[in-house]
Amino acid sequence: MIEHAKIDYFTEEGSVDAVNARISGDTNGRLADVMRSLVTHLHAFIKDVEVTQEEWATAIDFLTRTGQICDDNRQEYILLSDVLGVSMLVDAINNRRPTGATENTVLGPFHVDGAPEYQMGASITQAGGRETCLFEGNVKDLDGNPVEGAKIDVWCDSEDGFYDVQQPGVQPRHNNRGVFTTGPDGRYWFRGIKPVSYPIPDDGPVGQLLTKLGRHPYRPAHMHFIVGAPGYDTVVTHTFVDGDPYLTSDAVFGVKRSLIVRYEPVTDGNTKWRAEYDFVLHRSE
Amino acid sequence: MIEHAKIDYFTEEGSVDAVNARISGDTNGRLADVMRSLVTHLHAFIKDVEVTQEEWATAIDFLTRTGQICDDNRQEYILLSDVLGVSMLVDAINNRRPTGATENTVLGPFHVDGAPEYQMGASITQAGGRETCLFEGNVKDLDGNPVEGAKIDVWCDSEDGFYDVQQPGVQPRHNNRGVFTTGPDGRYWFRGIKPVSYPIPDDGPVGQLLTKLGRHPYRPAHMHFIVGAPGYDTVVTHTFVDGDPYLTSDAVFGVKRSLIVRYEPVTDGNTKWRAEYDFVLHRSE
Repeated sequence: MIEHAKIDYFTEEGSVDAVNARISGDTNGRLADVMRSLVTHLHAFIKDVEVTQEEWATAIDFLTRTGQICDDNRQEYILLSDVLGVSMLVDAINNRRPTGATENTVLGPFHVDGAPEYQMGASITQAGGRETCLFEGNVKDLDGNPVEGAKIDVWCDSEDGFYDVQQPGVQPRHNNRGVFTTGPDGRYWFRGIKPVSYPIPDDGPVGQLLTKLGRHPYRPAHMHFIVGAPGYDTVVTHTFVDGDPYLTSDAVFGVKRSLIVRYEPVTDGNTKWRAEYDFVLHRSE
Repeated sequence: MIEHAKIDYFTEEGSVDAVNARISGDTNGRLADVMRSLVTHLHAFIKDVEVTQEEWATAIDFLTRTGQICDDNRQEYILLSDVLGVSMLVDAINNRRPTGATENTVLGPFHVDGAPEYQMGASITQAGGRETCLFEGNVKDLDGNPVEGAKIDVWCDSEDGFYDVQQPGVQPRHNNRGVFTTGPDGRYWFRGIKPVSYPIPDDGPVGQLLTKLGRHPYRPAHMHFIVGAPGYDTVVTHTFVDGDPYLTSDAVFGVKRSLIVRYEPVTDGNTKWRAEYDFVLHRSE
């Protein structure tokens, strides 16, 4: 063995320092902070469970397959982030709001820019559906004042559980999508169909993981909303259908108590349901 | 808002419990333990640095590209594991040995099963090379007794810094590879060339990450060894060339002080160098 000047070669105990000491002083400060923290927590995880060589190989294979199944229409790494609660955690950290302001939830992969702009009262449903519904409510600020000029971008699945973009040859373009703008009273109302629960894509590595964990791939029925107005934080959220069997086991952890909405049966001509929800916006800081 | 029975929906503070509570009681116990720990440490990392939505999107893209560049000849996720010190950490956890026993280091991706078996003294180099070297030493147990019948599987790069399997049309098959078996004296000796330092593949996402961190992609020159004998722990290791400029900055953190070997210049006919190293095996438990 040869004597050397004191150099910190890799050891099990000193593994974090060995890796983090390599980050150059010229590195972007934020990147350096993120990588130092990543290495610290990643090594802590491996030491905590004492990962075996076989488990390590399984993990390498899982991560590789998760990347390889991705294409222009499928993003399995977002699914993985979703089912591990990471997407919701990042959303929560970046959208802390005062009590009373409408809470955020995940955007999801099915939003489309440039959906049709409709007049209040229009229907967003172009392809029919039995469970017709009136959606209505107010856009307000935290003091209860109406917000004029708020854009409400809404989208949901069809009664078969698919978004239009998942069925390009089957559903009309922009089926169950639309954008509305509030007037001076801050009110909104439009027609559509009651959304239904559906599974996230479960025929890939993430679906296999869910199966191994005894978890189902379903999301409870929900209507997507992006509500924004000049001078206010934009809210990206869903409203969930009260009573849905998956409310307490959303595969992506998107449900918040304040976002659950009662769908009331109504006997108003062609409309079978009514869902009322008020959006409360928080002034931008 | 609707009153519900007490249900733990997702919150920033309760994110770990929300996810881990979903693991079914029927889940394989080891998988459940590993996933609980993973979620705990992963969420701790995200909370520690307060990952932004843009950073999250960058991470999703990085992970996806890392999977997509993998093919039969390239495994970018192993590279990622290597440069984050994870491969060495898993190796260390799974190969703890008493003081005095030869230390492990990473196997690397270039081992080949079925290399030629040679008599002691043979050369493993089929394609020449200027820096000819005699490798010799003993295989012993922790008490200093010779180990008979130890298989020594060795491999290294060519003087151009590539393994034979990286240059199938250029280097002969099994160039700089061979397997030797010790006799009753436990001694080994064979000829080859002094290995040279080389970069890990750096034209993909992992290489881009190293560049951003101000890190080079080089590994210090090393000779690979797998040394095993019935009744003993198999040692997977390298010996490193003392004086190599990358010894203290191996891109994959493989260097351990006890594995650095002095290459002595010799004036013995066709051989320019001599590298002596004793392997000390630990009885299997």
